[in-house]
Amino acid sequence: MKTVNIGIIGAGRIGQLHAENLARSKRANVKAISDIRVDLIEQWARALGIETVTTDSRKLLEDPEIEAIFICSSTDSHITYIEAAAKAGKHIFCEKPVSFDLKQTKRALEIVEEHGVKLQTGFNRRFDHNFMKIRHLLNEGRLGDPHIIKITSRDPNPPGYDYVRVSGGLLFDMAIHDFDMARFLSGSEVAEVYVQGAVLVDPAIGELGDIDTAVTTLKFENGAIGVIDNSRKAVYGYDQRVEVFGSGGNVSVSNDSDNSAEWSTAEGVFREKPKYFFLERYQEAYIRETEAFIDAILENKDVPVSGRDAYMAELIAAAAKQSLTEKRPVSIQEAAKGLLG
Amino acid sequence: MKTVNIGIIGAGRIGQLHAENLARSKRANVKAISDIRVDLIEQWARALGIETVTTDSRKLLEDPEIEAIFICSSTDSHITYIEAAAKAGKHIFCEKPVSFDLKQTKRALEIVEEHGVKLQTGFNRRFDHNFMKIRHLLNEGRLGDPHIIKITSRDPNPPGYDYVRVSGGLLFDMAIHDFDMARFLSGSEVAEVYVQGAVLVDPAIGELGDIDTAVTTLKFENGAIGVIDNSRKAVYGYDQRVEVFGSGGNVSVSNDSDNSAEWSTAEGVFREKPKYFFLERYQEAYIRETEAFIDAILENKDVPVSGRDAYMAELIAAAAKQSLTEKRPVSIQEAAKGLLG
Amino acid sequence: MKTVNIGIIGAGRIGQLHAENLARSKRANVKAISDIRVDLIEQWARALGIETVTTDSRKLLEDPEIEAIFICSSTDSHITYIEAAAKAGKHIFCEKPVSFDLKQTKRALEIVEEHGVKLQTGFNRRFDHNFMKIRHLLNEGRLGDPHIIKITSRDPNPPGYDYVRVSGGLLFDMAIHDFDMARFLSGSEVAEVYVQGAVLVDPAIGELGDIDTAVTTLKFENGAIGVIDNSRKAVYGYDQRVEVFGSGGNVSVSNDSDNSAEWSTAEGVFREKPKYFFLERYQEAYIRETEAFIDAILENKDVPVSGRDAYMAELIAAAAKQSLTEKRPVSIQEAAKGLLG
Amino acid sequence: MKTVNIGIIGAGRIGQLHAENLARSKRANVKAISDIRVDLIEQWARALGIETVTTDSRKLLEDPEIEAIFICSSTDSHITYIEAAAKAGKHIFCEKPVSFDLKQTKRALEIVEEHGVKLQTGFNRRFDHNFMKIRHLLNEGRLGDPHIIKITSRDPNPPGYDYVRVSGGLLFDMAIHDFDMARFLSGSEVAEVYVQGAVLVDPAIGELGDIDTAVTTLKFENGAIGVIDNSRKAVYGYDQRVEVFGSGGNVSVSNDSDNSAEWSTAEGVFREKPKYFFLERYQEAYIRETEAFIDAILENKDVPVSGRDAYMAELIAAAAKQSLTEKRPVSIQEAAKGLLG
Repeated sequence: MKTVNIGIIGAGRIGQLHAENLARSKRANVKAISDIRVDLIEQWARALGIETVTTDSRKLLEDPEIEAIFICSSTDSHITYIEAAAKAGKHIFCEKPVSFDLKQTKRALEIVEEHGVKLQTGFNRRFDHNFMKIRHLLNEGRLGDPHIIKITSRDPNPPGYDYVRVSGGLLFDMAIHDFDMARFLSGSEVAEVYVQGAVLVDPAIGELGDIDTAVTTLKFENGAIGVIDNSRKAVYGYDQRVEVFGSGGNVSVSNDSDNSAEWSTAEGVFREKPKYFFLERYQEAYIRETEAFIDAILENKDVPVSGRDAYMAELIAAAAKQSLTEKRPVSIQEAAKGLLG
Repeated sequence: MKTVNIGIIGAGRIGQLHAENLARSKRANVKAISDIRVDLIEQWARALGIETVTTDSRKLLEDPEIEAIFICSSTDSHITYIEAAAKAGKHIFCEKPVSFDLKQTKRALEIVEEHGVKLQTGFNRRFDHNFMKIRHLLNEGRLGDPHIIKITSRDPNPPGYDYVRVSGGLLFDMAIHDFDMARFLSGSEVAEVYVQGAVLVDPAIGELGDIDTAVTTLKFENGAIGVIDNSRKAVYGYDQRVEVFGSGGNVSVSNDSDNSAEWSTAEGVFREKPKYFFLERYQEAYIRETEAFIDAILENKDVPVSGRDAYMAELIAAAAKQSLTEKRPVSIQEAAKGLLG
Repeated sequence: MKTVNIGIIGAGRIGQLHAENLARSKRANVKAISDIRVDLIEQWARALGIETVTTDSRKLLEDPEIEAIFICSSTDSHITYIEAAAKAGKHIFCEKPVSFDLKQTKRALEIVEEHGVKLQTGFNRRFDHNFMKIRHLLNEGRLGDPHIIKITSRDPNPPGYDYVRVSGGLLFDMAIHDFDMARFLSGSEVAEVYVQGAVLVDPAIGELGDIDTAVTTLKFENGAIGVIDNSRKAVYGYDQRVEVFGSGGNVSVSNDSDNSAEWSTAEGVFREKPKYFFLERYQEAYIRETEAFIDAILENKDVPVSGRDAYMAELIAAAAKQSLTEKRPVSIQEAAKGLLG
Repeated sequence: MKTVNIGIIGAGRIGQLHAENLARSKRANVKAISDIRVDLIEQWARALGIETVTTDSRKLLEDPEIEAIFICSSTDSHITYIEAAAKAGKHIFCEKPVSFDLKQTKRALEIVEEHGVKLQTGFNRRFDHNFMKIRHLLNEGRLGDPHIIKITSRDPNPPGYDYVRVSGGLLFDMAIHDFDMARFLSGSEVAEVYVQGAVLVDPAIGELGDIDTAVTTLKFENGAIGVIDNSRKAVYGYDQRVEVFGSGGNVSVSNDSDNSAEWSTAEGVFREKPKYFFLERYQEAYIRETEAFIDAILENKDVPVSGRDAYMAELIAAAAKQSLTEKRPVSIQEAAKGLLG
């Protein structure tokens, strides 16, 4: 069986996750990993059988045996590594968002294009078993044309204030996944966006210039309407549901939980809470997205989530931010013009 | 619109329930009601517009305008009233069981037959929306031939000890509904029965010679197998579920509750408990069974639950009791021979 | 038991529904009903025991025995009858909307106030078992402060074009129920509304100047955000669901269906479709709202759904219509100023 | 991290499954595998990194580095390999059933005891997320004392006739898992068993002396009652559900399926079918059982499913077979006496 040699830049939580999933794949070999804190990861990396553990990402980019690079470093370094990897002729898997600056994202895509390498971006939720089923039902025409797309996306807890400061805010950090999901499910581009946002969970988040609650309305080019509701704090756990209503019917998916038990006592009827957070809920989706990337390389196919997908989600997030600030609907075109000139 | 004049014998809980349902029907007129405690019911009966409220049931039987009699008195008086009503040419609705003595039930059926009146018996659960749906799916052939029929039937609380003494026991008082349901759903007669019974809820019930927990296996003539599980005490409320597995599929129904709310908090995920007891759960079924009886009279059709249905359920109960005592499977034929000679 | 004598103006579908529910109540007596087409309803009305069946609504208003009037005529006649009934000292139950003209609704409320009669308006959904449970959980504090309120409200089929022409449009005719539900559940007034509407079901509806699909965002005075999604055509039936997310948790309710059966075959797993339309789904709610009105009269209590509730829902609908036309969020205050001067 | 070197005897479907799961474990190393058809597995085994692939199981038993043996060969060879492995001082994981001959199983257990090695048996369902939750709720006392235990266990398709011939029949091959589950959940030994069996799926199965449908009643020593329903053919897929009713409440678990989508069209409301068969449904359970075995070795703890657990399940199966033949309840004591003398 052919295998792909892989280098991973950045061994934080998500870098480690990808490394472990790739280590389990029969078609991938994690040959090298780089991180500023080699001391923290060396033992873990060795146990996984990774040959090279280094602080120097250039070693990965210069290794001729490495065909693909996973960029799992902080967002502000993504563009630099995309450029370097593309120039080194490596295929690229880059975590979302590509950047907070639409111009830079656009430039990165052009570089990737120039060098003819593949770029997959980390919208892992497209690989979730529930959302895939919705896409599948839509593809089969079981739901007719989509009319209303509803996405519920709520975290169990807000991130720390330090993270809030650099995260790009709820719209760029959290809702961006939902913007991608909206595009994935609607089969259409977003034309206009309107955000009604609020600070209801924690006033300190507001003081940092962010919101913690939002309802975003999307108008799609094909006429369909979307709505996303976000909250930074759902006390019962990670709430990730989608509903698509079309001319032929409606589909909804519920949260995953660890078991299907329903128990009844004198006090009431109970079920298990949802799986705690994204690592638990999207465990399988993370595996599937890396397998799909390996597939694309080995079989020289298009990647299932492209750089353009990342670009479009970032553009919607930018329009959403403008809508929030200006308290009015903002068209994607207007936002693009403002950002790109 | 033609209406049927009705007399009700016995104004206990179930007699009052039927009176109120009939009062709401446009095709029925409760003309008279009899009970030993007229003082307790007079005001209630007047408010319902019942003309005659009496201690003397003969007044009902002798009233030429009354076409049908509801027998809602205690079980030991059923046979007497069936005989009297049949001789008076009245159609009869009789609560279950017809009697605790199979010979007498058989004799009553013969009298009814002789006088050409209709006799419907009170197996109201056949009219429950959920169980009707199962029967409907079976009729349509959606489930193929039934292979396994599973009935869960659990009360929220045991009856008082005084009632336990005269009730005929769990098998005659409670499981008899389930024996009828088994016949209704299987479309076949029961050939053999085996009871594994226990006293797990309240030792005092055991001291009264009864059981409070039972699992009954039924072998049907068509080869299918049935299983009924009964308990006198489900702390979470009245538990009434059925499942039918066949060559073409499986159907299950869940309990009814007052609403479909599902709420999630930091403590867990909750749903409403089942409707409390039979009056709440089978409210609609009680209405439908009386409407069906009125139908049968007005349109001169067969009643949907016959005297023979009551007879067969009592015979299964008798065989079940013998199985419990003798700790072995007992065939219906053997039980019938023992009881009828 | 004390009973309330009632006169009903208008014996269309909803007038007949109220008449039949009131006929079943032990505390109400429908003494008279008026309609232009007496010939069509006479037999039905007599069977219900209604004494007076007339084309002349004045007979009802002049009958000193009649204490309360149900106004079930077409919307354009509501104000006239409210005024006449109030002046005659009758309590009033008026179907929604009170009028399409906010000034007139306001004037009607003042007249009612002047004459000291009660006015209940027909937002029957507040009495639905599922939505009542949500309100109950909120009252108990089980969900904390509401943050996001989501209402799904989809009809099985668009009304006829003739009706579309006079209905006031999707926002006034259909979504108005949802605007009331939003106020009922949020425990707060709406501050601002934004509508994203579309014609996706039937272009002819668009040609009549209406929309058939809408997603409406509401900003409440207490900071919470609401979202309503409407469609005139859900092929699977009437879709009426609500979800409230708060600081303490989330509650959702699902549609009612005729039974809880779930059946599995080689083809898949199936459940029953939702109850067909509002008459089936809100059958109990209609009974409860009239019982609550009778209660308010007999016990001299406040009505549970006031004239002001109707006024506020109409005001939100007007703001929504303005938002749709002007493609921007519109505050309630601005809409009120525009309409009332 | 300490790892356990493992040898696997038998590389059929279940042997390969364990090999792949162990290969993924960081604490296990599959050092050798033996099978008569080395040619069929060599490539697969090499890809997994297994050093020794041989037809000669003795090589595994004689390898001093191998600490534990997985016996995944045909049932008739289990005893021989258990004996050999125990004598070689290897810990043993043996698939179920240990044998079809209770005397031999007993003898094997004695040998294991003599040599002080661990023996875990392959009742993987104890490690299923749903059934573990039930056990957890029981341990916590949330359900009080168990009164009724209900197990539904239906295969999607009967095995081939060749397999039916050597399988030991439905009771030994299929229901044995359910007998173990009954013991696991009841926390009690079975005292008596009664089987009502039938041939409803395929007459050819009857001609081979087996049944394809069964309802088995269990009486537990602690007074609780159990009931298991089995079918060899559920057209909708693998049906594996459990319900436990106790003095404190009831718990039920439903089947797993690939996603939680519920879709509604004009035709009805649909959900996904259950996961196809045991490999899909119990994927996680198989991983957990091997992890638990590794744990027991590395931490020198008791295995979670012992040789005695296998012995007891086989004894119940034997009593069940006798009950089926003799058409009467059979006590475990009586069956043990008959088989062991």
